[in-house]
Amino acid sequence: MEVVELLHMNKGAGETSYAKNSKVQSKIISITKTVIEEAIIELLCKNLPESMGIADLGCSSGPNTLTVISEIIDIIYSKCSNLGCPTPELRICLNDLYSNDFNDVFGSLPAFYNKLKEEKGTDFGQCFITGGPGSFYGRLFPRKSMHFVHSSSSLHWLSQVPAGLDSKASTAINKGRIYISKTSPQSVLDSYMLQFQKDFSLFLKSRSDEIVPGGCMVLSFTGRKSMDPTAIESCHQWELLAQALMNMVSEGLVPEEKVDTFSAPYYGPCAEELELEVQKEGSFIMDRLEAFEIDWDGGVDMPNTINGTLSSGQRVAKTIRAVIESMLESHFGRDIMDDLFQRHADLVDKHLAKTRTKYTNLVIHLVRKG
Amino acid sequence: MEVVELLHMNKGAGETSYAKNSKVQSKIISITKTVIEEAIIELLCKNLPESMGIADLGCSSGPNTLTVISEIIDIIYSKCSNLGCPTPELRICLNDLYSNDFNDVFGSLPAFYNKLKEEKGTDFGQCFITGGPGSFYGRLFPRKSMHFVHSSSSLHWLSQVPAGLDSKASTAINKGRIYISKTSPQSVLDSYMLQFQKDFSLFLKSRSDEIVPGGCMVLSFTGRKSMDPTAIESCHQWELLAQALMNMVSEGLVPEEKVDTFSAPYYGPCAEELELEVQKEGSFIMDRLEAFEIDWDGGVDMPNTINGTLSSGQRVAKTIRAVIESMLESHFGRDIMDDLFQRHADLVDKHLAKTRTKYTNLVIHLVRKG
Repeated sequence: MEVVELLHMNKGAGETSYAKNSKVQSKIISITKTVIEEAIIELLCKNLPESMGIADLGCSSGPNTLTVISEIIDIIYSKCSNLGCPTPELRICLNDLYSNDFNDVFGSLPAFYNKLKEEKGTDFGQCFITGGPGSFYGRLFPRKSMHFVHSSSSLHWLSQVPAGLDSKASTAINKGRIYISKTSPQSVLDSYMLQFQKDFSLFLKSRSDEIVPGGCMVLSFTGRKSMDPTAIESCHQWELLAQALMNMVSEGLVPEEKVDTFSAPYYGPCAEELELEVQKEGSFIMDRLEAFEIDWDGGVDMPNTINGTLSSGQRVAKTIRAVIESMLESHFGRDIMDDLFQRHADLVDKHLAKTRTKYTNLVIHLVRKG
Repeated sequence: MEVVELLHMNKGAGETSYAKNSKVQSKIISITKTVIEEAIIELLCKNLPESMGIADLGCSSGPNTLTVISEIIDIIYSKCSNLGCPTPELRICLNDLYSNDFNDVFGSLPAFYNKLKEEKGTDFGQCFITGGPGSFYGRLFPRKSMHFVHSSSSLHWLSQVPAGLDSKASTAINKGRIYISKTSPQSVLDSYMLQFQKDFSLFLKSRSDEIVPGGCMVLSFTGRKSMDPTAIESCHQWELLAQALMNMVSEGLVPEEKVDTFSAPYYGPCAEELELEVQKEGSFIMDRLEAFEIDWDGGVDMPNTINGTLSSGQRVAKTIRAVIESMLESHFGRDIMDDLFQRHADLVDKHLAKTRTKYTNLVIHLVRKG
């Protein structure tokens, strides 16, 4: 099984769950809200459909999943009220990989629908929420069925470890590293870049079949401002995780070849690479591209009741763990996870004491040509 | 929480799971296959849509879920091949209550899609399978989006325990009984009949909004041939379960008032009642109604590797347990379940030794008027 097929946020509501450790992603959603709002309003002003297809790609589970949907519905409701028009019938599809915890998402729908009815009253149109599992690097929805497609914190995941880098070949990345870095050979950098191009172009092609002319997408994901894929903003979180793993190798807790054979299926692109792919694919116009920085721990203003007494490094480690533990576990085994992320947390604390490195997040607004 | 909201088939793949104890339902699906086939062929001959909406209501989880979908796809593929037409894009929505194990269903989709690609090749059109959770006694899908709606072994479940019968009032059914019987007062029989009428009419109204003119439904469920809702074919499985519970009451293992306050949200209608509701609602023509009998244990010809050495009564008890345990547990507690179903199995064995009572299953084909 491809390592990326194992990518799902940590399930449940425990201490290491994504539900309890998704403040960074929540912050990103709140920052991109304006872009979503302007995109939807532009869409509705051009043409108010009777039935509106909406998709959230990489919806995950936990509180963020329905927060996004709730915001989108609020924007549509408020705009339609302003225009004095009835709200369209909403067909909302939540997408993530087959292993996502859809039971958790569906379990919170009755309360969600009740709240909707309470807040919006009976003049609000019908709203149908479904789960559509599968990889967004390929077709997911019927032809010309979607008006607005959203994705947050998902598109930096490649469809696979770059071809030629899986298993033994991944040692080419560099001994003791799990992601590209300053010392990676050019061939490795190239294979990551090519995989990104192939994936993102397939993503655009698939969505271009599914989105109606004039429909649009708002996509946000981790990227970089620098043209250099080995820039610290892009890969230092992986570097510190690799260091934590190598510490464990040096103590004999993890076989070195385990580290050498792991490659993260991750690529944070820059604006130029995105623009090139959008242009090459040809179905979309890039209406907007913005970059913003976000603290590794989501920033100090984020209330975090269960993590309140934790160090910054511990918060960062918990956030990353909730996302990538499923992949790491399948390769390194479950037993080392607590130890690994404790070491990782310490390294992050040491690093942040020296340099306040931040994630660069990109948000783009793409409109389907008519 | 309404007891019926807790209705979900036993999850997982263990000894008491629905996945391992759904041979009766599987047998019903196989018997109704001809009706499904003829309905779909009639539909495709009238008008071959470019994009075809298909829904399975009460899809459950386990092997039956994708068996039905697979059969429907086979029928469409084979008919289109005969006609020399491309297969339509298939939009398939799997529906069940919010608590259904959709994770299990979605987890088996990758293998399902691979098999589809292998068997049907690339000339087969796109097929998009989604999960749409919610009660089918109400709207589930966008307006005029469905061409073929299927439901098996689900519509005998009411949306709720008949109004006025919940909690204390249900003692009116009869001391020591959990479902209507020969000795139930007329007011209780009436409240069950009324609840069925209300539910089934809302079901028809909801589907009439969703199904395109000329589209159709094939529905099969437990019912009866007799006009009398207290006929043995309709309720004796409940009677034996009530007896098992009352045995436990007499031994002080279950408080009597627990039994008195439980009512099964179940109603098996007869042909006349169905015809009346279809006529009253007015959107559908009943093209076909068939009744068939099915052994309580699915019949001796059913291979059952894990249950091979069990008595008939034990097989029946396991089948019923897999379906209703979730409801019973919430009312009686988990601890008594093993004991209860052992007693139930013994009672079924004794009963079947005397009388080979069978379920009556009804299957109807309804066509949406133009």
